[in-house]
Amino acid sequence: MEKTPPYYGSYLQLEKVLDAQAPLSFAPGQSPAHDEMLFIVIHQAFELWFKQILFELDYILSVFQQKKIDDDGEDLNLVRHRLRRINTIFTLLNQQVGVLDTMTPMDFLAFRNLLTPSSGFQSKQFRLIEARLGLEMPQRHHGEYYKRTNEGGFNPQDFQTISQTENEQHLLSCINDWLERMPFFQASFWGNPQIEKEIDHPFWQQFRSIYVAGLTEREAGKAADFDRIFFGIPTAHDSASTGTNKFSATALRAALFIMLYRDFPVFQTSFQILDALIETDHLMSQWRQRHLSMVRRMIGFRVGTGNTSGAGYLEGALQQHEVYTDLAGLSTFLIVRSALPNLPDALKKALGFRLADLSFPG
Amino acid sequence: MEKTPPYYGSYLQLEKVLDAQAPLSFAPGQSPAHDEMLFIVIHQAFELWFKQILFELDYILSVFQQKKIDDDGEDLNLVRHRLRRINTIFTLLNQQVGVLDTMTPMDFLAFRNLLTPSSGFQSKQFRLIEARLGLEMPQRHHGEYYKRTNEGGFNPQDFQTISQTENEQHLLSCINDWLERMPFFQASFWGNPQIEKEIDHPFWQQFRSIYVAGLTEREAGKAADFDRIFFGIPTAHDSASTGTNKFSATALRAALFIMLYRDFPVFQTSFQILDALIETDHLMSQWRQRHLSMVRRMIGFRVGTGNTSGAGYLEGALQQHEVYTDLAGLSTFLIVRSALPNLPDALKKALGFRLADLSFPG
Amino acid sequence: MEKTPPYYGSYLQLEKVLDAQAPLSFAPGQSPAHDEMLFIVIHQAFELWFKQILFELDYILSVFQQKKIDDDGEDLNLVRHRLRRINTIFTLLNQQVGVLDTMTPMDFLAFRNLLTPSSGFQSKQFRLIEARLGLEMPQRHHGEYYKRTNEGGFNPQDFQTISQTENEQHLLSCINDWLERMPFFQASFWGNPQIEKEIDHPFWQQFRSIYVAGLTEREAGKAADFDRIFFGIPTAHDSASTGTNKFSATALRAALFIMLYRDFPVFQTSFQILDALIETDHLMSQWRQRHLSMVRRMIGFRVGTGNTSGAGYLEGALQQHEVYTDLAGLSTFLIVRSALPNLPDALKKALGFRLADLSFPG
Amino acid sequence: MEKTPPYYGSYLQLEKVLDAQAPLSFAPGQSPAHDEMLFIVIHQAFELWFKQILFELDYILSVFQQKKIDDDGEDLNLVRHRLRRINTIFTLLNQQVGVLDTMTPMDFLAFRNLLTPSSGFQSKQFRLIEARLGLEMPQRHHGEYYKRTNEGGFNPQDFQTISQTENEQHLLSCINDWLERMPFFQASFWGNPQIEKEIDHPFWQQFRSIYVAGLTEREAGKAADFDRIFFGIPTAHDSASTGTNKFSATALRAALFIMLYRDFPVFQTSFQILDALIETDHLMSQWRQRHLSMVRRMIGFRVGTGNTSGAGYLEGALQQHEVYTDLAGLSTFLIVRSALPNLPDALKKALGFRLADLSFPG
Repeated sequence: MEKTPPYYGSYLQLEKVLDAQAPLSFAPGQSPAHDEMLFIVIHQAFELWFKQILFELDYILSVFQQKKIDDDGEDLNLVRHRLRRINTIFTLLNQQVGVLDTMTPMDFLAFRNLLTPSSGFQSKQFRLIEARLGLEMPQRHHGEYYKRTNEGGFNPQDFQTISQTENEQHLLSCINDWLERMPFFQASFWGNPQIEKEIDHPFWQQFRSIYVAGLTEREAGKAADFDRIFFGIPTAHDSASTGTNKFSATALRAALFIMLYRDFPVFQTSFQILDALIETDHLMSQWRQRHLSMVRRMIGFRVGTGNTSGAGYLEGALQQHEVYTDLAGLSTFLIVRSALPNLPDALKKALGFRLADLSFPG
Repeated sequence: MEKTPPYYGSYLQLEKVLDAQAPLSFAPGQSPAHDEMLFIVIHQAFELWFKQILFELDYILSVFQQKKIDDDGEDLNLVRHRLRRINTIFTLLNQQVGVLDTMTPMDFLAFRNLLTPSSGFQSKQFRLIEARLGLEMPQRHHGEYYKRTNEGGFNPQDFQTISQTENEQHLLSCINDWLERMPFFQASFWGNPQIEKEIDHPFWQQFRSIYVAGLTEREAGKAADFDRIFFGIPTAHDSASTGTNKFSATALRAALFIMLYRDFPVFQTSFQILDALIETDHLMSQWRQRHLSMVRRMIGFRVGTGNTSGAGYLEGALQQHEVYTDLAGLSTFLIVRSALPNLPDALKKALGFRLADLSFPG
Repeated sequence: MEKTPPYYGSYLQLEKVLDAQAPLSFAPGQSPAHDEMLFIVIHQAFELWFKQILFELDYILSVFQQKKIDDDGEDLNLVRHRLRRINTIFTLLNQQVGVLDTMTPMDFLAFRNLLTPSSGFQSKQFRLIEARLGLEMPQRHHGEYYKRTNEGGFNPQDFQTISQTENEQHLLSCINDWLERMPFFQASFWGNPQIEKEIDHPFWQQFRSIYVAGLTEREAGKAADFDRIFFGIPTAHDSASTGTNKFSATALRAALFIMLYRDFPVFQTSFQILDALIETDHLMSQWRQRHLSMVRRMIGFRVGTGNTSGAGYLEGALQQHEVYTDLAGLSTFLIVRSALPNLPDALKKALGFRLADLSFPG
Repeated sequence: MEKTPPYYGSYLQLEKVLDAQAPLSFAPGQSPAHDEMLFIVIHQAFELWFKQILFELDYILSVFQQKKIDDDGEDLNLVRHRLRRINTIFTLLNQQVGVLDTMTPMDFLAFRNLLTPSSGFQSKQFRLIEARLGLEMPQRHHGEYYKRTNEGGFNPQDFQTISQTENEQHLLSCINDWLERMPFFQASFWGNPQIEKEIDHPFWQQFRSIYVAGLTEREAGKAADFDRIFFGIPTAHDSASTGTNKFSATALRAALFIMLYRDFPVFQTSFQILDALIETDHLMSQWRQRHLSMVRRMIGFRVGTGNTSGAGYLEGALQQHEVYTDLAGLSTFLIVRSALPNLPDALKKALGFRLADLSFPG
């Protein structure tokens, strides 16, 4: 097949990629709107990068979908590395939105009507990124709108792809399972105490009392939040302000533990993974925010091409579409490092490298 | 005084600037928190840039506070240039927030309590930037909080400086006056028609009918908005969604006219000035947004050091503190360039350069 | 054709754009190298943006290729705007290079051999950007290499396209002509003096003596440079350090004049155009520099896939491929604003708006 | 002293920081040059960040200056984290240079002469960053110039501080020692073979033959480079193109080994540290490059304020002042992952976590 030596343009299939820009306003009978080319190119560039992000997410999911992750293997190291890459790409995309600021509202108006009812809302790949990260239809802003093809929603085929992806195991669920399997609270490390409920575990008893003692008067309510989040004990008035309970209490205990003791070798990569996920959420929010700000600038208070209420839709999504808020919210429950409970020796040893065990006769 | 030749370090007064970092946690009896240094340095860097922004704003204000601006002079060109500089600086500051992402919540916790009740809220210079741009106390989120020194508000002296600045003429007011003075609707340009109300001006009659004809069914309400915004005609249900009425109808007509005919030489710089002001608003919103996101990441759902509700305060400010929304909202009322009313020849001539009048015998 | 309403994915022809990634290492019989996908996607994104840059350059060229540019028209305003857009895009591309930093040298090695002899050198569109800006084959580093297809040069068809484009009128040449046509030194403005050579023009006589008087001892040689650059008077030792003489002396006098008196209305846009061109050069240099640094990091001191000496080639191009160095070099010949010669009243008037001539009876 | 509660402005000592801008052109008898304020502020912002970078470097040095680094402790994790922070800061500074692009050459000229003979060359902190990273006087471009106070060099006190810092142990030397101590080639891991010279070590014999077999004809010379760099065997023609021999052969062997087997838990953090150092070098080069480009734009081909040859000096530094080129050059000697020699089981075990050894009775 590869008889001809590779050549830059053919390797990159530029004959396809660079032949895919057909501004509607350039068609016969229309008045060419110069800036429609920019509009097409920037969205294609977004989609190329979305494809790359999905490619990285597929790898990351494949690691966490294994029965057992080999902590000595390369998997988690690559997960960390590739999550970071996703964040690097989103950082670029946030800057990329700025290129559209060189299109003025009046330049947009020159071809805007030709686009109706399509809109950026219909980026299937962006919805798939959201879905693989863990966003589900009930959580989506104006979820019912997704299937209204004629009003700017998705066509049936794309809608099905998105729904189907949401029904597969997503990253949030994988991370939850991975965290739940963490063996660090096993009784053997802690002198095999008699425990009825997990809240009675010596570590959490000690930690909870340190945390509660450090709360100011105005923050007193956080004690009940603590019990609800980490031990599933319902509170009188369910505070919406402390996460969305997408993670189990067991998983959140493990995540908090990793954040607290992140400097132990075993936790270094895990901590960076959790941190990168929170960062992904933030960068996607920034993207939505910049996108919203750009749309507002373009169309002011008019209706969006997709018949949505334009900027209004984006504002709703901005608040609802973050998925790792439970993890981000854990910073509510940190304590100062100097007050951290000392860990049992057996556990400390388990959290380190084997290298220290070995003698080097040389 | 300047007997000794300038030397980099003394010219920049580095003996002061680099001697101003005294982390509270480094004091005797405290546990040094390594990251407090970063916390101090980044805020000092912010304040340096805020000083520069105020310096540029002072110049810009001084231009618009003149009785008459010489259109042939350098003033507006410099205003444009320096507004752009302010935007370049805010773009940098938005990136600068990202450096704080290298401080984890737990690193912050190590010195956070020492800061109470001070907080970033108390940046006097940032409040002055807002005030000079046109933000006034009644519009400020939790305005009453500004003077509660003991709870993280301003001390009396700073509060007075801010209030006083708000009472001086701010940029929004200057821009409004400048726009109102634009002579382009003067009767002589338009064949001296008999006009009772400004809405009867031939240009606006024509423009309004083109605009209204282009509205979709769902956008029908914009016609009334048009009349309210550009002619001060009250609407039955005052729609909050189309600006804050900080600019007069006369000024907004001029601003819209500039946006529509921005390619005429006389309007090129004016258009860029209006565009830059909208951009300033957007960049400051981005800054508030990134700041909010950073605070959420740091403290989760705890109370802020300044006793505010932390992230809650910032969220309020995010929505209320934009000042040039009237200008940004004008994009609601644009029409496609090809449908623009043709201007009277006398006016077109007036909008151009004198160069074309001259013959060059060579 | 457009019976079906536009849909995001079809409008953007995503079925082509997202079907164009075929990593060679994913072919049967190869070991899939995960990062080859990133490698392909990032280069495709570069090429999409290159297409956009060429599209903007085409417009800009079309303006300058007119017999007469209407100073009162929108053309120059749009040229300024779209040159700025090109610079915004290059700024983005410079950041985009950073995404490749997430690919480590060893990750690259996993598919690098499959690419031989193709290489980024072969980006036809990038060469066309260079060519349209004004780079010609004799100036290209290792120009003879461009046609050696088997060793990583261009195939005959691409080579011909590049050569042909170089033979068409490029932007540098257009800008030179535009500058040469500037009428500001016409005798009538200056009281019709008797002048034998252009150096005797009253303005240049005065300006030259101010400039020379301001030179320090170490800079004394600049006086001869001045005469050579602005009046074509050969110097004893031709100093390579003051530009490449791609612009004519007449054009450079006009460019310097614009830089000096840029605040006059007629010059504001022209100045921004010259400034943007210098910026384009700088941004492309930055791109080459970042590209070089990335290649060095990837392959160290090995031979590039295109059989070039790898980083060596890029280093050569870095120094030779800037095209607007003559314009950039004009900053050598500026004087302080306060020392600027006062212009004749007739000329000052010609540089302003017509608006000031008109009386407004109101 | 801290009886009064902390207040934002006093905590940050803004009374000092914001009182340190005294443009020379604003002094009585001078013509105020508006942009001198920007010039001062941006340099002060640079210096603030340089202070932060030095603060981080001090910590990093303190870790490596320990007799023994506890691999199970937090030290290396923090080194990695804080090196990354330094890189984040340099990334910001590279963007910050761009703010100076809003000052045109003519704006600079308005106050430039007042600065002579001081110049950015005299940033003591920047020199100290270079020195702590590992740059020494003999390697500095125009090193003799550093002490010529009257011609824009350093004053005696600053010169001494810089020289003294260079004589202290710098990071490059620490990293070299740390790498040399790596125990992975100890005979016990490899079945205690009889080895006369290190080149006979079973790993390096095997690796060398794989590497050499993979070289193309044009790269044949790399085999000798390999022996010189990793085993100190002199080559006939000393190739300057493969590093500067600042690291010992022993250290470079360890560094290459880490790069090759970076996915093993023990190497993950070490690899990121080496990678971050190479990145620091690149970012500082970018900074020098952008600085050079900015200076060229400002003064063209004139002499710099510090009497240096202006841009010429910066160009020299650009090439000579990188310090971790030996590490960066290691990418020359990588092989594809699939060809990597398999490691002895005892060693593989030693490179992992202890966790896997433990049984969890639960």
